[in-house]
Amino acid sequence: MTTTNVGLIGLGTVGSGVAKIIMEEAEILAQKLGHDIKLAKVCVRDLNSPRNFSPPAGILTTNPEEIVGQPDIPVVVELMGGLEPARTLVLKALTSGQHVVTANKALLAVHGREIFAKAAETGREIKFEAAVAGAIPVIRTLKEGLPANRIQSISGILNGTTNHILTRMTRDGLTFQDALAEAQESGYAEADPTNDVEGFDAAHKLVLLTALAYGVLPQLADFHVEGITRLEPDDFSSAAEFGFVIKLLATSALDPGGRLEIRLHPAMLPAKHLMAGVSGVMNAVMIRGHACGDIFLSGAGAGMMPTASAVVGDIIETSRDLQPGAAPQVPALGWKHLQSWAVRPQDEIRLRYFLRFTVVDKPGVLSAISGILGKHSISIAQVIQKGSGPKRGGVTLVMLTHEAGEKNLQTALAETDKLDVLTAPTRLIRVENLT
Amino acid sequence: MTTTNVGLIGLGTVGSGVAKIIMEEAEILAQKLGHDIKLAKVCVRDLNSPRNFSPPAGILTTNPEEIVGQPDIPVVVELMGGLEPARTLVLKALTSGQHVVTANKALLAVHGREIFAKAAETGREIKFEAAVAGAIPVIRTLKEGLPANRIQSISGILNGTTNHILTRMTRDGLTFQDALAEAQESGYAEADPTNDVEGFDAAHKLVLLTALAYGVLPQLADFHVEGITRLEPDDFSSAAEFGFVIKLLATSALDPGGRLEIRLHPAMLPAKHLMAGVSGVMNAVMIRGHACGDIFLSGAGAGMMPTASAVVGDIIETSRDLQPGAAPQVPALGWKHLQSWAVRPQDEIRLRYFLRFTVVDKPGVLSAISGILGKHSISIAQVIQKGSGPKRGGVTLVMLTHEAGEKNLQTALAETDKLDVLTAPTRLIRVENLT
Repeated sequence: MTTTNVGLIGLGTVGSGVAKIIMEEAEILAQKLGHDIKLAKVCVRDLNSPRNFSPPAGILTTNPEEIVGQPDIPVVVELMGGLEPARTLVLKALTSGQHVVTANKALLAVHGREIFAKAAETGREIKFEAAVAGAIPVIRTLKEGLPANRIQSISGILNGTTNHILTRMTRDGLTFQDALAEAQESGYAEADPTNDVEGFDAAHKLVLLTALAYGVLPQLADFHVEGITRLEPDDFSSAAEFGFVIKLLATSALDPGGRLEIRLHPAMLPAKHLMAGVSGVMNAVMIRGHACGDIFLSGAGAGMMPTASAVVGDIIETSRDLQPGAAPQVPALGWKHLQSWAVRPQDEIRLRYFLRFTVVDKPGVLSAISGILGKHSISIAQVIQKGSGPKRGGVTLVMLTHEAGEKNLQTALAETDKLDVLTAPTRLIRVENLT
Repeated sequence: MTTTNVGLIGLGTVGSGVAKIIMEEAEILAQKLGHDIKLAKVCVRDLNSPRNFSPPAGILTTNPEEIVGQPDIPVVVELMGGLEPARTLVLKALTSGQHVVTANKALLAVHGREIFAKAAETGREIKFEAAVAGAIPVIRTLKEGLPANRIQSISGILNGTTNHILTRMTRDGLTFQDALAEAQESGYAEADPTNDVEGFDAAHKLVLLTALAYGVLPQLADFHVEGITRLEPDDFSSAAEFGFVIKLLATSALDPGGRLEIRLHPAMLPAKHLMAGVSGVMNAVMIRGHACGDIFLSGAGAGMMPTASAVVGDIIETSRDLQPGAAPQVPALGWKHLQSWAVRPQDEIRLRYFLRFTVVDKPGVLSAISGILGKHSISIAQVIQKGSGPKRGGVTLVMLTHEAGEKNLQTALAETDKLDVLTAPTRLIRVENLT
């Protein structure tokens, strides 16, 4: 029986889970695979940190060069996070002929072009199932399960922290600030939550899904990224009245002209759609293909063991490809053809919109607002006028539009915002017609 | 550029979809793969049947031996269905050194031991993503995505015809007979619906999922298989009152003693669970692993293009493995170790139960029934007494029990059924606590 030596860089939460599975399940894995997977070296920041398991003697090091570039360690697992030195180490590993498994979505979203090119050049694998949606095998599904399909769209809930916060706001009427504070207390949100609540983490994952589906690697500056920090309890109760649930939704699709429509923002979804039922820290991805129809995948998007499950899955696959007689795997579908692609300007998208105006309660207000909307070809589907909000000097007027162009809508809102009957900025939430 | 020749046996609905994808997407597939996939030969029953596409000249044959055993056709796609001659052809193809892709769940569930042994012996692949849950990549997820996991349970909605019928009964109050007739009219059910409505089709798929998860291949006679033919509108309204939805649910799990708990029957599920939201002809599978937690997959379980999507995915994977330099793939995890396993007797399972008694409306009835249940350690959680049903000479008494042993329950029901106040056989529906 042969043995695959694995080098692990980073022994935080996910790294510990990976080590735990490789050590505790060694016998079952060997039985399933016909060969052993061995944790040969683990690079940590501090040799003396307390750990919740006992690594074998001599396995720990603080020097990543004891893993990267070592010919007896064919598989490098990068779990340190961050852009540098992760980028340098991953490139060096690939150059040295090592295969790489990583969960580092930011690294791949930002430096993907360079890293994937290096992998193609050296004929080595870079696997990253754990980088998107944790335990959910969405990378594998796109690469291996649906290659017969032209992918028409991908939509998903890709960040567990924000979905947990939104679930609390939906179910229990919490404010964003209270839900965030609670999430921080219970460990679901970090002390600096920016990366999650502003949507950057989910946007990085969306970039990777887009790359797999369409062979392009847009940067965050190329598309609309909007977090959840400005959502208010009123939005959630209004959403419920219209039969919607608010989620932070990632969307990537081809528009009729073959341009990429990609965006990440809070969205109202039909309450009956499976996606609306994804609650707490769960993630979900829906893939629409021309042959397969809608494939919906859901599961734990983060956490020690779910993420480790995905990392070890990649290690096992790499290890199988390394067995005597097995040649390097055919490169991942799509990656070979990373190309530039026209992104559809956000201005040109067409959606239904939820609008919340805060206005002075006097005659003629609705007429003034609806007049401006009408002038810009925005047709109103439903209106609800609500009582005075506790914190504002006005009444709330919520509207659901028929499908309209984003540019027209933004122009109209710029105009209504100048009306002196408006006492607060108008809120806009896009509506996604998931069917 | 090399070319992989594919031979297709069977050009029905799914076969036509496969041919359509291979021919229409040829250019994109070649670009993705770096090599061509070519439909070399297609075996049909009748050369002159009308078709909705035009196969290239000379490609059609009525003789499967022009595909099976031909050294220039390395991939055989069996889509003829049925047990024979499919079994003989598949075995012969494997023996001849050909790889096989099939969507034939019955063939693999019944003759799997023989067929998988032959594939292992000859070092050839047998792929069957399309055999379970159509376009949903559940086979790939179990084999490739979650090998780091000890699978704790699998549950799923594996038959689209029955799910469509149950959805109509749930939403619109139809009787089983009316919903079935409607499904037959609209093409969702076959003229002889036995295989679907009695649960055999879903049970075959459950056998295959069980084989992948646990390395065992139980036969239908080994476990409880119960279809949907006895469900009545009353059951659905009662389920709704208790917050449940009725689905035909397949379950396979390891019990605390390491025995296989496997069963297929109508089950009441919490209405808020994602599984309860799977409607119409959709299928879904939930996999619970010790590391990944719950992974939920849903999508089209049947239909021409969704099933063809899965078949072509398998063809592509096989074709990639055949490229110069690539060795035969490591055998599917688990298959090598097909073993015998103790099946937990249905008697020993413990669940909550929904019971519907039809009784004479007179004093003392509830006390008589609950007395018998109590004697057998069955504790009642909720009772609803309903008015007289239109067709029966009695009132309906529905109960939800706390968790109880199946054997105790069956013994108690045998006893209550002898009470002369009962005017119809008692109905039992198991409750699954999906969380």
